[in-house]
Amino acid sequence: MTMVFPTLADLQAARERIAGRAHETPVFTSRSLDAACDASLFIKCENFQKVGAFKFRGACNAIFALTEEEAANGVATHSSGNHAQAVALAASLRGVPAHVVMPTNAPAAKRAAVLGYGARVIDCAPTLEARETTLAKVVAETHAHEVHPYNDPFVVAGQGTAALELFEEVGPLDTFLVPVGGGGLMSGSALAAAAVSPGTSVEGCEPTLANDAAEGLRIGERQPPNPPTTIADGLRTALGPLSFAIMKTHVHTIHTVSEAEIVAAMRFVWERLKIVIEASSAVPFAVALRGDVAKRRVGIVVSGGNLDLDRLPWQEV
Amino acid sequence: MTMVFPTLADLQAARERIAGRAHETPVFTSRSLDAACDASLFIKCENFQKVGAFKFRGACNAIFALTEEEAANGVATHSSGNHAQAVALAASLRGVPAHVVMPTNAPAAKRAAVLGYGARVIDCAPTLEARETTLAKVVAETHAHEVHPYNDPFVVAGQGTAALELFEEVGPLDTFLVPVGGGGLMSGSALAAAAVSPGTSVEGCEPTLANDAAEGLRIGERQPPNPPTTIADGLRTALGPLSFAIMKTHVHTIHTVSEAEIVAAMRFVWERLKIVIEASSAVPFAVALRGDVAKRRVGIVVSGGNLDLDRLPWQEV
Repeated sequence: MTMVFPTLADLQAARERIAGRAHETPVFTSRSLDAACDASLFIKCENFQKVGAFKFRGACNAIFALTEEEAANGVATHSSGNHAQAVALAASLRGVPAHVVMPTNAPAAKRAAVLGYGARVIDCAPTLEARETTLAKVVAETHAHEVHPYNDPFVVAGQGTAALELFEEVGPLDTFLVPVGGGGLMSGSALAAAAVSPGTSVEGCEPTLANDAAEGLRIGERQPPNPPTTIADGLRTALGPLSFAIMKTHVHTIHTVSEAEIVAAMRFVWERLKIVIEASSAVPFAVALRGDVAKRRVGIVVSGGNLDLDRLPWQEV
Repeated sequence: MTMVFPTLADLQAARERIAGRAHETPVFTSRSLDAACDASLFIKCENFQKVGAFKFRGACNAIFALTEEEAANGVATHSSGNHAQAVALAASLRGVPAHVVMPTNAPAAKRAAVLGYGARVIDCAPTLEARETTLAKVVAETHAHEVHPYNDPFVVAGQGTAALELFEEVGPLDTFLVPVGGGGLMSGSALAAAAVSPGTSVEGCEPTLANDAAEGLRIGERQPPNPPTTIADGLRTALGPLSFAIMKTHVHTIHTVSEAEIVAAMRFVWERLKIVIEASSAVPFAVALRGDVAKRRVGIVVSGGNLDLDRLPWQEV
């Protein structure tokens, strides 16, 4: 079976589709960060995106790409986190119902946010199996269109728009560091870089405790998820078939970092850049602060800024 | 005795003098904040300024306005906080020595930052009297030029440049909310607003526990500082003669807010805007979130983002 990847035209169409709906987020630079990394970093701040994460780009593109007929019965997904809010908000903007399956252990604040965007929340047990069977039941009952968080070419194309904006603003880069969870952001970013800055080395960033992408690319076969132990909770997911295939073609290497490196990088960014980033977003900074990209012009996508401010990781170690 | 206030020409000269040295910080907006305040807020992010606070503008203007002769023996100040770093960095850019008197209870991180900019740190006992006598001794010995944190027209003009940039970017405003400590930012902002947007109501924001400016303007006489109990540690200072005189002329009212309102506003801004602001900067947001500026177009200057990330105020109440 061959898989059709989104093209540059698909990414550009996504960009037009989400224009005026998603934010064109700013690119930050920091002399103290550059000095600490011995590199020039260009930081695309998706923590300032709607719902506080890049996820809104993909959900918005997927939902606004639906025909009237496809959208008529609304959309559905399962998620405990940022994708749930992204689908809820995008559906609300399109004016169609959203059915969101959430595990009962999802944070109360995220559940409240999804309800706040007018979505219907369907509770399920906190297992992947329960989430999938509950979603299947919801889709069967409502005929809603399922929006997968990353195994969907429209979602991948939407996530790639952040990279398109970054390259347009700062020009070619030597290296592009992107965190890898389900691979939606990574594969969209890789497609964008390959199309508009083919000389860029596209490099994924993972916690060592969730190194399924590094292992998968090394072995050449998609790996199951690791036990969900890393504090970078957005990166615990395994890759999907689509993101894995794109990454095999377009990603040059995967860096892995320790939990201590993630916590130190997260704190460094909060202290020096004065921006709130979640632990998953600290992973590429940990790679850069270790010196892995010294002397280079480097792009980084900050994936999001959603976390529990009562429990900061440097207060727990 | 009449006091000569900085003019619009002085503020514009300050802006040219610091151009390329200080950052032109971005202006943020937030739909969720606007909804919570029932207003349109334009947020000038001086937490992204060099040294993490607006203080760099004033110090930079004052130090670069010195003649070669005045600057020859360097500069001196006493400060436990952001002004110390601002003077140290600006002196280093000008290439002259900086002598910074710091109380022995100043945070180790701030002391290290001042040393990191190449300044000389002179320790003193943690009282205002010890700071002033130590500084007088340093000035007598070195013949350095003293840069006061707010009772200096060049410092006031420098602080006012943030407001100039804000009005230039967003146009006239109904209301301008500024935190009040020593009054340097407040008086510089008030001069800028009076000159370029005279229809704007210029309103100071203070903790109720440090309401010396509100009391002083009510009585018509400068008040001593309150006991240093508010968590908004940048606002514990009393006004200087210059800032008080400017405020009597150009500030329309002073709002006061409780400690609980400050903590709630600070957390709201971190959670929704994904930016790190210090407690002093949360005070104008507390005013807006209480509904004091409903239905208006409002400017806010975020004074800074320097704080101890190990001890966040909502974890202590």
